[in-house]
Amino acid sequence: MEVVQVLRMNGGLGETSYANNSLVHRKVISMTRPITEEAITQVYSSVGAIANRFCIAELGCSSGPNSLVVAAELISTVHQLSRSQGRQLPEFQILLNDLPGNDFNSIFHSFLPQFRAQLDQQMGSKSASCFVYGVPGSFYGRLFATNSLHFVHSSYSLMWLSKVPEGVEKWNKEEIYIGSKSPAPAINVYYSQFRVDFHTFLKCRSEEVVGGGAMVLTILGRKSDNAAASKECCYIWELLALSLKQMVSEGAIDEEKLHSFNIPQYMPSPAEVRRSMEEEGSFAISRLDTSEIRWADCGSSSSGEDVAKCMRSVAEPMLVEHFGETIIDELFGKYERCLTDCMSKEEMKFINVTVSLIRRG
Amino acid sequence: MEVVQVLRMNGGLGETSYANNSLVHRKVISMTRPITEEAITQVYSSVGAIANRFCIAELGCSSGPNSLVVAAELISTVHQLSRSQGRQLPEFQILLNDLPGNDFNSIFHSFLPQFRAQLDQQMGSKSASCFVYGVPGSFYGRLFATNSLHFVHSSYSLMWLSKVPEGVEKWNKEEIYIGSKSPAPAINVYYSQFRVDFHTFLKCRSEEVVGGGAMVLTILGRKSDNAAASKECCYIWELLALSLKQMVSEGAIDEEKLHSFNIPQYMPSPAEVRRSMEEEGSFAISRLDTSEIRWADCGSSSSGEDVAKCMRSVAEPMLVEHFGETIIDELFGKYERCLTDCMSKEEMKFINVTVSLIRRG
Repeated sequence: MEVVQVLRMNGGLGETSYANNSLVHRKVISMTRPITEEAITQVYSSVGAIANRFCIAELGCSSGPNSLVVAAELISTVHQLSRSQGRQLPEFQILLNDLPGNDFNSIFHSFLPQFRAQLDQQMGSKSASCFVYGVPGSFYGRLFATNSLHFVHSSYSLMWLSKVPEGVEKWNKEEIYIGSKSPAPAINVYYSQFRVDFHTFLKCRSEEVVGGGAMVLTILGRKSDNAAASKECCYIWELLALSLKQMVSEGAIDEEKLHSFNIPQYMPSPAEVRRSMEEEGSFAISRLDTSEIRWADCGSSSSGEDVAKCMRSVAEPMLVEHFGETIIDELFGKYERCLTDCMSKEEMKFINVTVSLIRRG
Repeated sequence: MEVVQVLRMNGGLGETSYANNSLVHRKVISMTRPITEEAITQVYSSVGAIANRFCIAELGCSSGPNSLVVAAELISTVHQLSRSQGRQLPEFQILLNDLPGNDFNSIFHSFLPQFRAQLDQQMGSKSASCFVYGVPGSFYGRLFATNSLHFVHSSYSLMWLSKVPEGVEKWNKEEIYIGSKSPAPAINVYYSQFRVDFHTFLKCRSEEVVGGGAMVLTILGRKSDNAAASKECCYIWELLALSLKQMVSEGAIDEEKLHSFNIPQYMPSPAEVRRSMEEEGSFAISRLDTSEIRWADCGSSSSGEDVAKCMRSVAEPMLVEHFGETIIDELFGKYERCLTDCMSKEEMKFINVTVSLIRRG
């Protein structure tokens, strides 16, 4: 599923309009900053003390103004720490990862010069030696050399599964993600795929991150233990399913087509994240928090229109691949009305699960 | 000079038609293979014996089927060596460098999958751990962490200067590169720029390459000690200057415009390369060879048309930047006739200077 692969890379935020959804992503980065700072401080005080090279990976970096934001903040923190402790600033390697379909050219051409200018300004004449590389590939496989990473960051990427769970279309005809009409087997195959993928992710990173190194991962998720009963994660897709069903009833979409469409995403609870961590065992949990972002924060006008636009940038390639292009405008018109109606009655929120980890050993 | 910068990175072979000039580049790679193999064998027997990570940089990788060819050959050689010596295969880091304007997306999307498939096929089930990164930036600056590289390869890139030598337009009105009408001061500023750039290149690499690590560099150059008297390097540009002058006499190009146009290239002699190496001092020369490639090898038809096409892909962006687009077709029509005429009288050749180096210490 090439389209989904490309999509997933963009941290679930789509490649067509980062300028739009960068608002949400930027907010997530900003909200999780204290956790990231705490983690890098811890790593610098243990591993950093003996390393003259500090290696930072951004997984699912996408291509936009946010691609290098966290790296810049991490370097700034290490810079302050090294200055206050009278230690020499290490060299930095910044490894920007995303799937091979990501627009690395844009990062290198449009956003890297700004990043370098900011670094020079911040550090004065003593500009840090900072080497920025593009790393194409799925993070559900090995990407980096053994014992080479000191810090891994990923935001809004790990809820994307490596594929649509096998067999889910048999169970999940009435929904396009886990929803109120999903039977237990549908929920189970979704969760199984998440467990397999997340385990693979942790195993690969455990080989790459040095002992004492850290990871801070923010995943779009949920608070509730029940994957299907909660509006907080499922409802955004349920409203899209509703809009698709309206089009089926109008004859614009074939019912069979709808039944076989499912989103390769899983929004885990903190308990599920913890369970995977404990099963894999290589990382110790320093922190496991949730935070909230209002749907209304998808754009500047706090409207259903903004949310529809944001979700369109995420879902359009998948929808086009499955249903063809002709239905898209009509579909997102209906979806926008559903979203506006819902948001007028209730304050809807996305839930972020953020976990801060230290590599054991 | 962004256009020239983009150009330079493409190994002087342009980004518009690598499929055309990949014939020449592929031939150079093939001709220098024994030297590359000798060097990697030497590195593997000294440094490789203790390293479990083998780090290879391709400088001026461009974007095309040739971008990963040398890396694939180097891995294959190390694979054979490790098997014959009963040693464990190391992990490989392949660092593909070119200027930020290079099309890294194409490498990652179109050429990397083929490279991986070839690797898998070659190694059977024991596929090498091979991590491929894109490294945007000028090689006339630091690109890699201190003491991190084991092998550096660069082909048809280092004859491109970091810029047009300052003040050259004052002296070099009748030529666009060093030519038979260039006075001594023009030749001197060209050579000075090469010495400064090449020294910077060697200094940067000396910090990045581990002691015992190797570099194999192939530079478009000349055999003769005299930079201006020899047809072997200057004539290809002199014929283009001639075509430009014809257009001046026809009123299609302003004479002043022609006087201020110069190519940011320098084709060194083996003696000049040796002198720079000895002045910088960090690398010991294992080999310094020249080889030849006929102009006729630019394409499949061995015609002036092929050479004109090849040179157009190299020079067009610079010419458009300086003279505008309207003159291009006419200019290359004239150039093709000059080339055809010249090639009918004489077998013309490009000269390659290949140097194989070991990092001291």
